[in-house]
Amino acid sequence: MKAARLFHFRGLVHTRIQCRGNSILSQEPSGPKMKTKIPGPKSKQFMDDLEKTQNPLSTIFVLDVDKSIGNYAVDVDGNVMLDVYEQIASLPLGYNHPAIQKVFQDSKNLSQLVNRPALGVHPTPQFIKQIDQTLLPVAPKGLEYIQPMMCGSCSNENAFKAICIWHANKQRNGKAFTEEELKSSMVNKPPGSPSVSLMSFEGAFHGRTFGALSCTHSKAIHKIDIPSFDWPIAPFPRYKYPLEENDRENKKEDERCLARIEELFHEYKSKKNPVVGVIIEPIQSEGGDFHGSATFFQRLQKLTKQNSAALLIDEVQTGLGATGKFWAHEHFNLPEAPDIVTFSKKFQTGGYFAKKEFQPKQPYRIFNTWMGEPAKMLVLDAILKTVKQENLVENTRKTGEVLLNGLKDISKQYSKLILNTRGLGTFCSFDMPNASVRDKFIGEMRNAGIQMGPCGDVAVRFRPALIFADKHAHIVHDKMNEVLKKL
Amino acid sequence: MKAARLFHFRGLVHTRIQCRGNSILSQEPSGPKMKTKIPGPKSKQFMDDLEKTQNPLSTIFVLDVDKSIGNYAVDVDGNVMLDVYEQIASLPLGYNHPAIQKVFQDSKNLSQLVNRPALGVHPTPQFIKQIDQTLLPVAPKGLEYIQPMMCGSCSNENAFKAICIWHANKQRNGKAFTEEELKSSMVNKPPGSPSVSLMSFEGAFHGRTFGALSCTHSKAIHKIDIPSFDWPIAPFPRYKYPLEENDRENKKEDERCLARIEELFHEYKSKKNPVVGVIIEPIQSEGGDFHGSATFFQRLQKLTKQNSAALLIDEVQTGLGATGKFWAHEHFNLPEAPDIVTFSKKFQTGGYFAKKEFQPKQPYRIFNTWMGEPAKMLVLDAILKTVKQENLVENTRKTGEVLLNGLKDISKQYSKLILNTRGLGTFCSFDMPNASVRDKFIGEMRNAGIQMGPCGDVAVRFRPALIFADKHAHIVHDKMNEVLKKL
Repeated sequence: MKAARLFHFRGLVHTRIQCRGNSILSQEPSGPKMKTKIPGPKSKQFMDDLEKTQNPLSTIFVLDVDKSIGNYAVDVDGNVMLDVYEQIASLPLGYNHPAIQKVFQDSKNLSQLVNRPALGVHPTPQFIKQIDQTLLPVAPKGLEYIQPMMCGSCSNENAFKAICIWHANKQRNGKAFTEEELKSSMVNKPPGSPSVSLMSFEGAFHGRTFGALSCTHSKAIHKIDIPSFDWPIAPFPRYKYPLEENDRENKKEDERCLARIEELFHEYKSKKNPVVGVIIEPIQSEGGDFHGSATFFQRLQKLTKQNSAALLIDEVQTGLGATGKFWAHEHFNLPEAPDIVTFSKKFQTGGYFAKKEFQPKQPYRIFNTWMGEPAKMLVLDAILKTVKQENLVENTRKTGEVLLNGLKDISKQYSKLILNTRGLGTFCSFDMPNASVRDKFIGEMRNAGIQMGPCGDVAVRFRPALIFADKHAHIVHDKMNEVLKKL
Repeated sequence: MKAARLFHFRGLVHTRIQCRGNSILSQEPSGPKMKTKIPGPKSKQFMDDLEKTQNPLSTIFVLDVDKSIGNYAVDVDGNVMLDVYEQIASLPLGYNHPAIQKVFQDSKNLSQLVNRPALGVHPTPQFIKQIDQTLLPVAPKGLEYIQPMMCGSCSNENAFKAICIWHANKQRNGKAFTEEELKSSMVNKPPGSPSVSLMSFEGAFHGRTFGALSCTHSKAIHKIDIPSFDWPIAPFPRYKYPLEENDRENKKEDERCLARIEELFHEYKSKKNPVVGVIIEPIQSEGGDFHGSATFFQRLQKLTKQNSAALLIDEVQTGLGATGKFWAHEHFNLPEAPDIVTFSKKFQTGGYFAKKEFQPKQPYRIFNTWMGEPAKMLVLDAILKTVKQENLVENTRKTGEVLLNGLKDISKQYSKLILNTRGLGTFCSFDMPNASVRDKFIGEMRNAGIQMGPCGDVAVRFRPALIFADKHAHIVHDKMNEVLKKL
């Protein structure tokens, strides 16, 4: 039954499809329309208000959420921007999509919206159905255990815990906890609180809570002054572009990273801090849009298995279609599913899919008050239905080609400014010569009506909604040409 | 302006009030009505379904969220239970309260419900107003910096980070980060990732992510197999009841705990793992409903200040009125506000209030994609308005007296079964001789129509909604008498 559903869902990606019924695009303005520089005077006024209680230093502009529509964000000064960043990659259907509006307008959803239950003790029939009919059909093949959570960080933290529990369970060989383990765990000491480790990668981003932050190595300002676990950090490939001209060098880069990963497994085993799991993004997103080859990921999976560790793929930013496949790791043709896949952002909620063996045998080990959120699951259900009906993953693959090809053309013309153009689907990016040029470029693009985001030290990233169409890509290209001419 | 609002809000607590307009109570059934044992056959069937993808071992029954109303939870078998546990203390207005229904029925809220923005970069005017008009009026006096978050664990984790940043900033004396600090932080090493510590308490519960879990010491099953930080753990008072007969012994207990806290400050300073903050619950809730005296908390605050550490009070379970004051720590008459107060559960979302000095001076240090949730803030606004209009904090104080006095009467009759009866407001509890008697009692009470929860090794806790009234307390007392007679 489940396999059939999965196949059905996936099957659509491979049929010839028209991006039909995208009625929301007909409600969009014809293009960006700017009234002020960003932030405008009204945004600044709100930011002053915000400063009384908040740190407003990361605020870019204040959003008019009523007027924003489809791919267009409107700010409180009335500036209309084509948004290719979409609230840090978290809006799959853009702004005010009618399918999501209907969720809140349908009175039969009211009690699910109003009452937030403690799902771990008192699930509702609706939530059990949502797990089965909303989440299970998009599960990576072979990952039948689903753990709903609330955000990306807590999804990763709890996936780490599932890995630690899985490892200890293997070590224990089915035996019961010892008195010493139980007692020592209560005071944070081994053997109950063991000094096992998670391997992560240079440039990685997995969240900002203490466990997730120990695996995050994107920017110093994310980490400085916060205590961390002494866990191993491996290099993630840094390729030369264009890929097709640098095959030999890039293969060497894979070898270098894999050799170091292997070394770290051995080093940490002898430090008595053994690696029980490896966490990796299919594309390092916050860190600067770094890609790894299919071969790299296949060999990483093999190495991880050889070292009796679990492979956790963090699809918080890449999941739900943006790369032209539902999950980015599908691009790697792994011989079997990764052990755990975490998700959040475009899903509006969080959680992970895992192999059955990662489900703890005792209650209350992976647990919290809410354990998910039925209201967001209703929204997610509307999103996934729309993605399927409108073939938006395939749309993203095709529009991504248009977007990327245009970027490559521009990079030929501005070869000293636009470097290393790369991408899968609309998950595209390029580098600029340095951070100050990059930041200036993004600021000017915004003033020209394109809302985009930075990542890493020098990269510009595209994270449009899945309803991003060819015409939007052309607008981006045109505006880039305008801005680069003057840069 | 803010002081005036605060005063106005608090003022209501001290005037004579009738619990008026509680129209939801008139929609309630007249009492519990049981059709099956818990879990009933339909619950069991859903639990079988759940087992395919989830760990169902913590599931108690499957909730019929459409039929539940006010203080009454209804399950899928049609059992009507008076709920004094309220989804692990997280529903302040019970089930299907009209004030919350209106939030979703009001079309002017639609765009806020539909679009989940990245509030750290693109706040909305509505959210800025919510911070000011919903959260600020209930801020503990003197805590003017508000950091919205999503759940209890991430609120505590981020409050820890704010404390670490505050401490490092003091140490740095306003100087810039050094190159060494920046570089070392990226690889989880000191000085950038310093080995500072947070002090927590035996029996504490602060959440289950890695930082929060290092401060949690409630039950071994919450912690076993998960790596932890080596942070100090102090004793929390364990009083003898009734308090009025054991004053001298309980004062000694305070002294013992405070002496050990002082020792730990010194020990960890010499271990080069200095304590930068202390996290404590006003009442240890998950751990077994342990109370500390006002004197204990006042002296803890003094000790914390003397050791240049921050005092974080975790009001995730105690906040929003359940103890008969809006914040439980108001019972302690602290000479000044604690440095940080975290909240979640009844707030439907999470976050913390802090002194201004705990606001990092740089952007992106306390940050994540969502940084709160406007949809939940709309619900919270409706909750807080209802609490104010219907004087539900005062209602809880008064009903709490009825509940507690009845429990004390019962404990006189069943003095070998009902021990250490205690409570503030309706945040009441008692101990039983051992876990198996306690668990049996809770099961029998549930089968008699009272849904209640355990905490710690041997305690039974009350966490009713703020609309819990005298008549509900009487039903609880009657059912307890029935069940205890047969136990």
